[in-house]
Amino acid sequence: MRIDIAFLPKDVSKLELSNTVCIVLDIFRATTSIVTSIANGCKSIIPVLSIEDAHTLADQIGPILFAGERQSIKIEGFDFGNSPLEFSQDKVQDKTIIMTTTNGTAAIKATEGAHRTLIGSFVNAKAVCLQAKQYEKNILIVCAGTDGLFSLEDTLCAGLLVQLLTGEGERIMTDSARGALLMYNEGKDKLIQIAAESRNGKRLYDIGRMDDVEYCFRTDLLAVVPQYIGGRIILDK
Amino acid sequence: MRIDIAFLPKDVSKLELSNTVCIVLDIFRATTSIVTSIANGCKSIIPVLSIEDAHTLADQIGPILFAGERQSIKIEGFDFGNSPLEFSQDKVQDKTIIMTTTNGTAAIKATEGAHRTLIGSFVNAKAVCLQAKQYEKNILIVCAGTDGLFSLEDTLCAGLLVQLLTGEGERIMTDSARGALLMYNEGKDKLIQIAAESRNGKRLYDIGRMDDVEYCFRTDLLAVVPQYIGGRIILDK
Repeated sequence: MRIDIAFLPKDVSKLELSNTVCIVLDIFRATTSIVTSIANGCKSIIPVLSIEDAHTLADQIGPILFAGERQSIKIEGFDFGNSPLEFSQDKVQDKTIIMTTTNGTAAIKATEGAHRTLIGSFVNAKAVCLQAKQYEKNILIVCAGTDGLFSLEDTLCAGLLVQLLTGEGERIMTDSARGALLMYNEGKDKLIQIAAESRNGKRLYDIGRMDDVEYCFRTDLLAVVPQYIGGRIILDK
Repeated sequence: MRIDIAFLPKDVSKLELSNTVCIVLDIFRATTSIVTSIANGCKSIIPVLSIEDAHTLADQIGPILFAGERQSIKIEGFDFGNSPLEFSQDKVQDKTIIMTTTNGTAAIKATEGAHRTLIGSFVNAKAVCLQAKQYEKNILIVCAGTDGLFSLEDTLCAGLLVQLLTGEGERIMTDSARGALLMYNEGKDKLIQIAAESRNGKRLYDIGRMDDVEYCFRTDLLAVVPQYIGGRIILDK
């Protein structure tokens, strides 16, 4: 089994993924929010790239909830922004949500064609790795990044996943997987401090979402693994 | 002063660099060889992208030495391959060399338009950082990577440079700079071991160039800083 990391969705575009399980990470905050929603009983999440696409789709499929942000701020008229703390059981249980976020949606869509696309985060790290290993395929961890630039928090989580995936048995790691593992090992005892100095972490602090930063690092809080299949994100059972 | 890292030359293509000092790294082995050549008295090195360009240029400028590799192997008929140990004083003093390497040449050329382009490596790490700081500009460390993929050894060296550049005073670091610094701090006491497991390191071991791997990690062996200016690499005095 080969373990690789793409630091950005654009690095995925030329890859042949039919024999690969992808794990998508957008720690601040799309994939953390998706995992939390699915854990709280959300039936399905449909990721779309634009606000326009969200409205067009809603017109087709009827009453629905909208989630999404631009520049970390909730889109006007939407039911949810992109804070994982918003997606509580009383609001999402048995619901379908159309979601559009700046980076996370694009990262998920970049993996179309993969054998499987799983949604990862710190909060379901162990669960997503256990699930990914079961497929016995190559694994590509796809970091969403931020506006086309490398994101520290995504890569730190990728390093944790590399550690969990390579725990037993022989695995082939690419240089990017080895690099992220080194990064995680150096940073694992000071994740929140590092995040506070990162570009996205600073932005969340600036808009007063320190609670989100702390939540997004709650490693192994949840045991669910969302899967992106047929254009929807559902629980991977 | 802002410190940034591009993990690959293609990440540089859209940047406006006129107010930026670039430090190019191709640890295995182009920039290590260039620094060594200049330290051994080589007058200038002209990087070109193709073997054809090398011959065309030689026809124009007359008797000259050729250096270059493809897939880590010396190009047929060339005077040097890409091992830094080949560029000894008796062979390079006062000479001009036309060089074409798989990744290093492209990385150097990607920085055209920068305020300055300096050639870095572990062997001149401190010297290149001291020189780069003197310009009082933003600094972009450009990793050559390997065939368009992230290289661990280049990024580890980039992390060392970030540490040296941020030693004193307030600096703004991007996420990629912070990430490489974490990587270097975790790896610094086992660089050769990590390199032996990296893609390029394995290749050098496979072709019996363990001596190159060890040489390329001899941090601060040399005090020279080559500069790429007007299409040539010369000593930056």
